[in-house]
Amino acid sequence: MGQTHPNSSARSIWKGLIETYRAYLPVTENTPVVTLLEGNTPLIPVPAIAAQIGKQVQVWVKYDGLNPTGSFKDRGMTMAVSKAKEEGSKAVICASTGNTSAAAAAYAKRGGLKAFVIIPEGYVALGKLAQALLYGAEVLAIKDNFDQALAIVREVSEKYPVTLVNSVNPYRLQGQKTAAFEVVDALGDAPDWLCIPVGNAGNITAYWMGFCEYHQEKKCSQLPKMMGFQAAGAAPILAGHPIEHPETLATAIRIGNPASWDRAVAAQEASGGQFQAVTDEDILNAYRLLASEEGIFCEPASAASVAGLLKVKDQVPEGAKIVCVLTGNGLKDPDTAINHSQNPCHQGIEPDLKSVAAAMGF
Amino acid sequence: MGQTHPNSSARSIWKGLIETYRAYLPVTENTPVVTLLEGNTPLIPVPAIAAQIGKQVQVWVKYDGLNPTGSFKDRGMTMAVSKAKEEGSKAVICASTGNTSAAAAAYAKRGGLKAFVIIPEGYVALGKLAQALLYGAEVLAIKDNFDQALAIVREVSEKYPVTLVNSVNPYRLQGQKTAAFEVVDALGDAPDWLCIPVGNAGNITAYWMGFCEYHQEKKCSQLPKMMGFQAAGAAPILAGHPIEHPETLATAIRIGNPASWDRAVAAQEASGGQFQAVTDEDILNAYRLLASEEGIFCEPASAASVAGLLKVKDQVPEGAKIVCVLTGNGLKDPDTAINHSQNPCHQGIEPDLKSVAAAMGF
Repeated sequence: MGQTHPNSSARSIWKGLIETYRAYLPVTENTPVVTLLEGNTPLIPVPAIAAQIGKQVQVWVKYDGLNPTGSFKDRGMTMAVSKAKEEGSKAVICASTGNTSAAAAAYAKRGGLKAFVIIPEGYVALGKLAQALLYGAEVLAIKDNFDQALAIVREVSEKYPVTLVNSVNPYRLQGQKTAAFEVVDALGDAPDWLCIPVGNAGNITAYWMGFCEYHQEKKCSQLPKMMGFQAAGAAPILAGHPIEHPETLATAIRIGNPASWDRAVAAQEASGGQFQAVTDEDILNAYRLLASEEGIFCEPASAASVAGLLKVKDQVPEGAKIVCVLTGNGLKDPDTAINHSQNPCHQGIEPDLKSVAAAMGF
Repeated sequence: MGQTHPNSSARSIWKGLIETYRAYLPVTENTPVVTLLEGNTPLIPVPAIAAQIGKQVQVWVKYDGLNPTGSFKDRGMTMAVSKAKEEGSKAVICASTGNTSAAAAAYAKRGGLKAFVIIPEGYVALGKLAQALLYGAEVLAIKDNFDQALAIVREVSEKYPVTLVNSVNPYRLQGQKTAAFEVVDALGDAPDWLCIPVGNAGNITAYWMGFCEYHQEKKCSQLPKMMGFQAAGAAPILAGHPIEHPETLATAIRIGNPASWDRAVAAQEASGGQFQAVTDEDILNAYRLLASEEGIFCEPASAASVAGLLKVKDQVPEGAKIVCVLTGNGLKDPDTAINHSQNPCHQGIEPDLKSVAAAMGF
């Protein structure tokens, strides 16, 4: 073993969001921190999108798809599982078919807990659960619908020593609010606008909490307008009532009755922001634009934030600084990439220089 | 617009690997930096793997699957595309069916260049190319084999103003070596062992370059033993001759004649390291272990580094510090996750508390 050499680099090494933002989180020195070094995701400038708006605006995306399990859910799950472990829980449970189940499984197993995922039988393709299964989740498919799955996980968590990690778990938003801290830390202040996809409405609520706490601590001089974007087929907040059969290809925000509805509306109102709906076509256009102009591959639901910004671009103030939240990694949904890429694959080219060069446009 | 508020956080914000390690890279102030803020990937402790070795060893994984396009290739591509742009190139070209084509497409389009990917017709499923296509690559399928595709991209790059970004591009290893810098920056010194999957042998070469340069600059007090692991069905370095038909489910290292063969052997010899082969079964066991015990989902090829470490665990010195490189994100290969998860999905459970609790083992 070599002697440890003092490192002259000034650069600080990221230790996960709980260690970094401990002063802002409901943890103590006795909390066993279950971490995969989540957070610290890049805030990437997107000049091609800014150019579509003009007015010398600056736009960034907060690319939370680069969290360890591929979505922003890791921010909440490091908190939820650490607290579950602190409380002596031996297992977590959730009803989810997507990003929540993957994050719950990864953090639970990382922390030495069991992970149970309850789904409605026949509702979901196995591929969507492959990630959770590989992390070691035990998946139980019940002969009923998703609402009943949600009801049962609540009941199980009340009667057995199993911690519920669905969105009602209060620690999840605590972890998620750290994304706002990171945005401020990177920009030196809060942006003018924060554009965010809205499904269950937890993330817009968490970002607003984060900005408000940082503002109170004078870490930023202003608060952003919270601009929430729902998929047109799943836009209960805009409709003013729950949507019984929400429909959108942006599955991560296909939610008819958001758990954090009231708090999301409070954030929008307090910030002077807006809710708007974007169509699946708007979402796909933004999804392709992000990939082919900016080099950023996100989940379709994530692209709702950029689609929404482009929809309301006439309202953007001159010189505004805008952050769009990209909640998940595009690799989570390969089918959409295959089905909605507009770039062709040219087949049957003769294997010689002249033919290939011609096909390339030379 | 609010006034920019001086941020009191001491934490430095990552600006991509070229900005961070500029002094070590062949760039000047005139180089147009094409970046997606790649690098800065987490070095995650893996205590369950360390426990299988015992002897008070410490093991970490360098999780390079959290780069922007999901693999370590981004490290090389930020350099290759920035230099191509500096040299006035308007397009890049590669022959690749996997991670290289995705990274090439993302960085090229990010930099305003065209991206061409040449593949052998019928050789590859469209799904593997979905990411590159969505990033806006133009894919050309030629009526010949992979070797001929490689020959043609070289020829095109010699005769037309198109930059070759296959592994022969010298800037790629320059970018990749920064992963070694990050490991040293995080640990405060070089580890005792560096375990790494070996396919084309570029990454082991680049890590060794990085460790040697940092050692020369006294950023670390020692050099690690370089432990290179090939898939048993694609192990030309161990065989001592090229393998004509390499076979392994770890497709990212299914290479019969590595481009950086000689330099990899030089690194292994100079460091006192080893090459070893691991079977597909070893790889799958490590792949599942990483996911279900540590909460880390990597590409199968990545798991070769951990499989190899476990294979030679009797040789690990007491108290050693070991880093295993995970080169790609598990989301790149959902089929393997679906086919090789050993966790069951329990179907047909009655939707009541008692039945669900019983299925959970209560």
